[in-house]
Amino acid sequence: MADPRIVRHAEVLVDHSLKVKPGEKILVTGTTAAAPLIRECCRLILKRGAHPIQSINIPGTERLMFEYGNEEQLGFMEPARLLYELADGMINILSEENTKELSQADPVKMSVRRRARHPLLQYIMQGGIRWVLTLFPTNAYAQEAEMSLEEYEQFVYDAVNIDYGELHRSMAAAAEQFNRASKVRIVGKDTDLTVDISGRTAVLCSGEHNVPDGEFFFTPNHLLTEGHIYFEWPSVYSGREVSGIRLEFEQGKIVRYSAEKGGDLLEEILNTDEGARYLGELGIGANFGITRPTKDILFDEKIGGSVHLAVGRAYEEAGAGNESAVHWDMVKNLKDGGEIFLDGRLVQKDGRWVF
Amino acid sequence: MADPRIVRHAEVLVDHSLKVKPGEKILVTGTTAAAPLIRECCRLILKRGAHPIQSINIPGTERLMFEYGNEEQLGFMEPARLLYELADGMINILSEENTKELSQADPVKMSVRRRARHPLLQYIMQGGIRWVLTLFPTNAYAQEAEMSLEEYEQFVYDAVNIDYGELHRSMAAAAEQFNRASKVRIVGKDTDLTVDISGRTAVLCSGEHNVPDGEFFFTPNHLLTEGHIYFEWPSVYSGREVSGIRLEFEQGKIVRYSAEKGGDLLEEILNTDEGARYLGELGIGANFGITRPTKDILFDEKIGGSVHLAVGRAYEEAGAGNESAVHWDMVKNLKDGGEIFLDGRLVQKDGRWVF
Repeated sequence: MADPRIVRHAEVLVDHSLKVKPGEKILVTGTTAAAPLIRECCRLILKRGAHPIQSINIPGTERLMFEYGNEEQLGFMEPARLLYELADGMINILSEENTKELSQADPVKMSVRRRARHPLLQYIMQGGIRWVLTLFPTNAYAQEAEMSLEEYEQFVYDAVNIDYGELHRSMAAAAEQFNRASKVRIVGKDTDLTVDISGRTAVLCSGEHNVPDGEFFFTPNHLLTEGHIYFEWPSVYSGREVSGIRLEFEQGKIVRYSAEKGGDLLEEILNTDEGARYLGELGIGANFGITRPTKDILFDEKIGGSVHLAVGRAYEEAGAGNESAVHWDMVKNLKDGGEIFLDGRLVQKDGRWVF
Repeated sequence: MADPRIVRHAEVLVDHSLKVKPGEKILVTGTTAAAPLIRECCRLILKRGAHPIQSINIPGTERLMFEYGNEEQLGFMEPARLLYELADGMINILSEENTKELSQADPVKMSVRRRARHPLLQYIMQGGIRWVLTLFPTNAYAQEAEMSLEEYEQFVYDAVNIDYGELHRSMAAAAEQFNRASKVRIVGKDTDLTVDISGRTAVLCSGEHNVPDGEFFFTPNHLLTEGHIYFEWPSVYSGREVSGIRLEFEQGKIVRYSAEKGGDLLEEILNTDEGARYLGELGIGANFGITRPTKDILFDEKIGGSVHLAVGRAYEEAGAGNESAVHWDMVKNLKDGGEIFLDGRLVQKDGRWVF
């Protein structure tokens, strides 16, 4: 019998996220490390009268592509394209055995492969297939999070196996307050930042596309950001870490910036294009099952009592906004003395709602 | 670095069996238990400028199909069909973690699924895709063979990693003797059987479709078999074992039969249809790297110093012959006092060629 936490995780993915119906074709993708979750997903998909399609990768084989592949080989996406076009829904399970597996791979070859994968991502994002992204706890992620595997497993299931109805209700109540406001003022350690969201409406995320989930986000009016913010938790961009980031905004633009570690990378990213200096997203973390950062944005940005800002591109679903090749989420802890004000009214203190 | 025996096994499959060329699409199918061989196959396919396509199954998920699947679900073969049609070649790696995984599955559901899979097998057999079948050593197969995993691994690689050029030359020399003969007389323990192959030509198998390989076979003139034969090694039909089979032929037909164990199954199979009582194949084992039977026909029928007879259907590639729904290979050990005569002339004694 499977770990009941894994059975519940599969229920979240199959029934809550994808709402699988009889006759539907559901792609389940991951590495062999996720076998227990893949098996439970297949079981439940079959129980729902639908068709599971396994798309499994052997860890270590993707790297071979970068060691030996020529341009034609790096661009070969035909099998994935056929399966995406066949499927009605997809459960994508992050399940690496080594998060640094590709850190020595040729960046030129990696960008060739990223470009080749782009039409597939577009197909997904344009609604060609229902999708949900999740993570299966492996030693690799536990190590990244500086936990034992057992501790990390419990961390993941505390985040993933929550009451999504209750999550949605509590987020809707909070988002309602934001939707009526113009100015969001975030105050905390070395932080006093005002973001303008007048005319904007929150997008609520309660397990449709991410598991774990629990955030609502806005496309800010990006020319109106004022003030400064300090991120005590590390931010990761493409697997590289920057910590102690401090940003200062004037008329929406980052005019001063610094970092305690990884300042070179911060500078490089902020200089990518004009849009990289403006905000594309303001997100409010609302999953109180996640109690600490693990340098994994899938979890960090959902932490109850945190907010996150993305420099760069805005997501269209929350309304048009800033444009850039970059979209980099940075998560701000508000649990230790942080405050959120909406048009001058205190709504959150120490990471807890006070309205 | 991978076990060099696995690297060599991959070379046999990619270079000898499939002769993979640049730009070709090669499907690699197996379970997660075969990860080391799948990885080396992918590496070599990439080195040859071709495109590996992984089609991996999590052990235990196929059984779920029989536990929960309705007729529509059991018949769902779309993903396999798409990948078969896309691919130029296929490496199919037997790699079960439990050979009895499906022994409690509903036989009616299993036959529904077999029927659904039939068009795929036809597509393969009609040349829609180049293919090779092999085995990766697991504890399940080792247990079936009554060996430790380490012993069984060595057994497999002794059978698989041989000089295929030398195998082909030695088989061609022996087959040449058979091609010129009419009557093959097999003599051994409780055995004196004559099979007619006049006008027939040997089909040589040296690693094109099976790895391990090493046999040449004939479609006998099935109305002319006379005499009796005793099989001291067990024969397996659809996972069920019969041992100590004795068959007696008159004018090609089995007129008397017995078994020391599993006589009921023998009777059931021989009564399947009229053709099940006649021979469809005479095969000569020629792989002297395989020294003992392991109840796995992929290996047993190749044993150097053995012959095998199939009751039932003849393979078309060796010429038209007997027809039946059955094709059941039974392997006869000739290494302990066995003899083969071609038109009265001794050509093999104690399992060694004497011409």
